[in-house]
Amino acid sequence: MSDVKTAISPKREQDYPVWYQEVVREADLAENSDVRGCMVIKPWGYGIWESIQRVLDRMFKATGHKNAYFPLFIPLSYLAKEAEHVEGFAKECAVVTHHRLEAAPGGGLRPAAGAQLAEPLVVRPTSETIIGASFAKWVKSYRDLPILINQWCNVVRWEMRTRLFLRTAEFLWQEGHTAHETEAEARAETEKMLKVYAEFARDYLAIPVFMGEKTEGERFPGAVQTLCIEAMMQDRKALQAGTSHFLGQNFAKSSGIKFLSRDNKEELAWTSSWGVSTRLVGAMIMVHADDDGMIVPPRLAPTHVVILPVTPKPETRDAVIQAARALAEKIRDQVFHRVPIEVEVDERDLAGGAKSWEWIKKGVPVRIEIGPRDLEKGSVALYRRDQGVKEKTFPAVADAVAGLPALLQEIQDHLYEKALALRDQHTVKIDSEREFYAFFTPKNPNKPEIHGGFALAHFNGSPAVEEKLKNDLKVTVRCIPHELEVEPGTCIFTGEPSRQRVIFAKAY
Amino acid sequence: MSDVKTAISPKREQDYPVWYQEVVREADLAENSDVRGCMVIKPWGYGIWESIQRVLDRMFKATGHKNAYFPLFIPLSYLAKEAEHVEGFAKECAVVTHHRLEAAPGGGLRPAAGAQLAEPLVVRPTSETIIGASFAKWVKSYRDLPILINQWCNVVRWEMRTRLFLRTAEFLWQEGHTAHETEAEARAETEKMLKVYAEFARDYLAIPVFMGEKTEGERFPGAVQTLCIEAMMQDRKALQAGTSHFLGQNFAKSSGIKFLSRDNKEELAWTSSWGVSTRLVGAMIMVHADDDGMIVPPRLAPTHVVILPVTPKPETRDAVIQAARALAEKIRDQVFHRVPIEVEVDERDLAGGAKSWEWIKKGVPVRIEIGPRDLEKGSVALYRRDQGVKEKTFPAVADAVAGLPALLQEIQDHLYEKALALRDQHTVKIDSEREFYAFFTPKNPNKPEIHGGFALAHFNGSPAVEEKLKNDLKVTVRCIPHELEVEPGTCIFTGEPSRQRVIFAKAY
Repeated sequence: MSDVKTAISPKREQDYPVWYQEVVREADLAENSDVRGCMVIKPWGYGIWESIQRVLDRMFKATGHKNAYFPLFIPLSYLAKEAEHVEGFAKECAVVTHHRLEAAPGGGLRPAAGAQLAEPLVVRPTSETIIGASFAKWVKSYRDLPILINQWCNVVRWEMRTRLFLRTAEFLWQEGHTAHETEAEARAETEKMLKVYAEFARDYLAIPVFMGEKTEGERFPGAVQTLCIEAMMQDRKALQAGTSHFLGQNFAKSSGIKFLSRDNKEELAWTSSWGVSTRLVGAMIMVHADDDGMIVPPRLAPTHVVILPVTPKPETRDAVIQAARALAEKIRDQVFHRVPIEVEVDERDLAGGAKSWEWIKKGVPVRIEIGPRDLEKGSVALYRRDQGVKEKTFPAVADAVAGLPALLQEIQDHLYEKALALRDQHTVKIDSEREFYAFFTPKNPNKPEIHGGFALAHFNGSPAVEEKLKNDLKVTVRCIPHELEVEPGTCIFTGEPSRQRVIFAKAY
Repeated sequence: MSDVKTAISPKREQDYPVWYQEVVREADLAENSDVRGCMVIKPWGYGIWESIQRVLDRMFKATGHKNAYFPLFIPLSYLAKEAEHVEGFAKECAVVTHHRLEAAPGGGLRPAAGAQLAEPLVVRPTSETIIGASFAKWVKSYRDLPILINQWCNVVRWEMRTRLFLRTAEFLWQEGHTAHETEAEARAETEKMLKVYAEFARDYLAIPVFMGEKTEGERFPGAVQTLCIEAMMQDRKALQAGTSHFLGQNFAKSSGIKFLSRDNKEELAWTSSWGVSTRLVGAMIMVHADDDGMIVPPRLAPTHVVILPVTPKPETRDAVIQAARALAEKIRDQVFHRVPIEVEVDERDLAGGAKSWEWIKKGVPVRIEIGPRDLEKGSVALYRRDQGVKEKTFPAVADAVAGLPALLQEIQDHLYEKALALRDQHTVKIDSEREFYAFFTPKNPNKPEIHGGFALAHFNGSPAVEEKLKNDLKVTVRCIPHELEVEPGTCIFTGEPSRQRVIFAKAY
């Protein structure tokens, strides 16, 4: 049996969760800190997040939103205002109770006895309540609407089991918050931003997603309707990659966002909120990385190309380094999808093999090697990260430079197609409960293999069934998809009529 | 006596602190939240911060730094590691003691009794200790050095008396953290980043600054040397606009940042840290705003030009609006200092005067009015925010468009020159203690007028004198300036020999 040695061990098929951790570590994306559940995002991982921010920020501004910033702390009384919201978030908050430290008798520090806050503060798990308080001040008449705001910030949700990027106590995100004159406008906004997320996932993350609506049990606490995008990871589990909530008048009521209408009547505003987070970096890893490490989609790569000078002999070293730098300058003049191509020349005094593997594991889209022989021939050795690690071509220097924008787009497209093929392969219509249970049950219960996928099944929306499936199989309704045709049928669990198929899956 | 009515009341000379608050409010920059000391940064204020971030981020990257992200929370034990550091920061921290809330018996919420943290966490007031813990893991040999990191984030320092942008409990900032192989490299980094700040202040904020070194009493807790840039506000007080610290091996020791040297010996790294914050927005206001509101330096303006369609009659309204939009498109094709010129067409259904005053108070550099008569003449009315509110010119449309980049630079330069002239006027050499006390004492103690400035005086560095001046006059040594010639003399307070003049001032 072929057992090619790979850079990441274990391989995906051997132990997917450990493979994920190893990719994050070997690609130098992030690491755990000594603070429970809080991660350190290292420069390569943060660079990817900066690319995500750059693109999304442009998309938000193009749809009329402006950035603003609201307090990190939320008074307890604010959180308590919206009944469902408090139920959903109160369980997992970091609570600030003191504003000063003092020396402890046994050495070290402790919260100062005299510095207890009259009202404890919660570190924001999300900002509907604190932003609602501002909106209430800003809105007087219908002329002040809509308010279209976005915030880039950190949030904290105390989590018992954490995993880098996917579930951490502190994470970075953006939260859009909008207030509208009418229900229709708020619903349209909720849909519009879901589409922005789906477009971003497809065109930048190279991840195909299903857009749809959450069932009642999976809704955002306080929302009337939660829309989401759901993606399939390589272990065939689902990951919710973004959500957009229609909040009705619930938060307007609890925060007092009132306005004088065109008819001169006092009315409550209609609000929405929507967000994506550093979780997207986790999704990118789980969709694109392979057994040799990370693969960053070119449109979001902080570095598109790395040039590795090959310097076997001291006498040719200078010429090679000069050629590598000159090549880098030429490449930097090329533009790929609105940004200059980012190049790094790795001149570190390390063995060539070790250097190459570092960049493979980081997932830089293109590697270019240039050595004394290439100089003679006027060509380079070019490797694509989305192909086998040994596969290479030998373009002439000028062709390599001129061809890069198209090549990067080809890699981008290829990643998307691969992800789409995997998802299509494992998205299946299922028409009986027996078949459903078989689909989601591993063959080997002692050492569960990668199994399952997205099951499209008729379902009549019973919360009791949802509860049972969660307990029996850890399977949930990921969404009631928007894109599928509405095709009436019979719920496979209850035999009752069903309006359409929904997507079931195991999920992160 | 002339008493022209202005948009901001009181005027600067009447009550500078209240004038400042009013400018912040009327320019829609920020507001207080219900959370003690925490501000809401509104879109216009946040847009200025985004411009600041964009430029500084580019400057940091050009000097070899990469962004990363570290936890919001710092374990108490970390903070306690560096003795001076804890002394300096322990007094003003937000302390997280619980990780869950529960329903309180009388209604509302309270920290859950069973959810007390074993070790309380502090919301970062600055990140030397938590970043040091990561550096200790990252550095093994001299080959891993230097590490050049920057972080954009929020920090919290509990403050009793707060003022929007200038002193708030939570603020946004960037903190650079670097580790080096040698003392010389770390000192060079500290100097280099101070120069980056000074260049940014001069070329973007349009604020002249003195670069210099803090005295021992004003040093960052734990630093060996604190460098700073100091600017003069319009009330002639100083504002520290940025700091760069040489930390020696103090934090390397407490965090264990050790490396194997070129001689194969274990050595401690040398570290630096440097930061600027949303305080810069406060500095921008206090240096450039006038009695009609904010004036944003063009290079940092989120919107450079506002076009106000003048539509006195319904029958010409459409033509005017179309012309305004067409003009905006033409202007957007113009580039000012690397960015496309940002234009807003204010089509709101409000009275023209009210609209104009809103933009004047926000400080948009250029206003353009276009009405039916202008259409006939093919010209526009153009107002510069740095000139009298009624002053205008009537360029032809094409000239207005083509001339904007140069005009914006002219405004930028003019703002700098005005600020420099004020600073020069009120920076004086003082050679006796009596003169010094007179300089810093208002004529009318009941209603203190704007007075004082920067006093350049010989000083021998006695902490006792510094303490006395702080108590008597609220005057401190702002810095031992780098730019002044070293000119030996006699300390005006002690009669002892002095190596050079230092800058004294009242300060924010």
